[in-house]
Amino acid sequence: MSYDSNNIFAKILRGEIPSHRVYEDEHTVAFMDVMPQANGHALVIPKAASRNILDADPETLSHLLPVVQKVAKAAKEAFQADGVTVMQFNEPAAGQTVYHLHFHIIPRVEGAPLRPHSGTMEDQGVLAANAEKLRKALAG
Amino acid sequence: MSYDSNNIFAKILRGEIPSHRVYEDEHTVAFMDVMPQANGHALVIPKAASRNILDADPETLSHLLPVVQKVAKAAKEAFQADGVTVMQFNEPAAGQTVYHLHFHIIPRVEGAPLRPHSGTMEDQGVLAANAEKLRKALAG
Repeated sequence: MSYDSNNIFAKILRGEIPSHRVYEDEHTVAFMDVMPQANGHALVIPKAASRNILDADPETLSHLLPVVQKVAKAAKEAFQADGVTVMQFNEPAAGQTVYHLHFHIIPRVEGAPLRPHSGTMEDQGVLAANAEKLRKALAG
Repeated sequence: MSYDSNNIFAKILRGEIPSHRVYEDEHTVAFMDVMPQANGHALVIPKAASRNILDADPETLSHLLPVVQKVAKAAKEAFQADGVTVMQFNEPAAGQTVYHLHFHIIPRVEGAPLRPHSGTMEDQGVLAANAEKLRKALAG
């Protein structure tokens, strides 16, 4: 296991490729997943480099979950969800497709199954509108 | 949302019902899931009462993820897994079935799909043997 500093989330952190960013603090960034498994699907990542939870600095992890909570609460409100699924994949056998540690925060509506992971690219207008809703809920 | 102190994990924390415990510290307990989605599936829970991530104390959350990491690393080693899936469900729409905050740590083997959540009860002998493997990896 090693860290490739050209992974897509590293590029998003450096601003080399665009993202619909909804939150940032000293240690953490959150943005919309471009292939959402449900409407409002967001990602929370640490700024520190790690491939996944297996090689992360425990100090990094201690900052991360309170932000996952903030985004989960805001997402539930912003998308009028009934629940929130939190998932985090480590290595390809677990479904990991981007090799920078990330948490999926997925708003869930009663009766609506998850769409496949890394499935269909969402419309940019929908992502922008959802990011704005989530930012408002995070600010509120 | 409210916390029911008679949920099954609260009873496990109080020792009122048995569990295959693999780890304990000041804030956290880990034990085997009795309906594993894959061999070696474990749960990490905080001692502090919360229904799920939506109502948890952020301080509780800051202690939790470093323990999830410890158990994930140990589970990968103990069960010779290729990866580890981490999941955390909030409210019934997200698949939550026990209303005390918990993280699922599921060792993954290449090509083996997850079994259903809250599916089939595992044999107690298998759970005991897996707990012993996980304890050894956590101690090593």
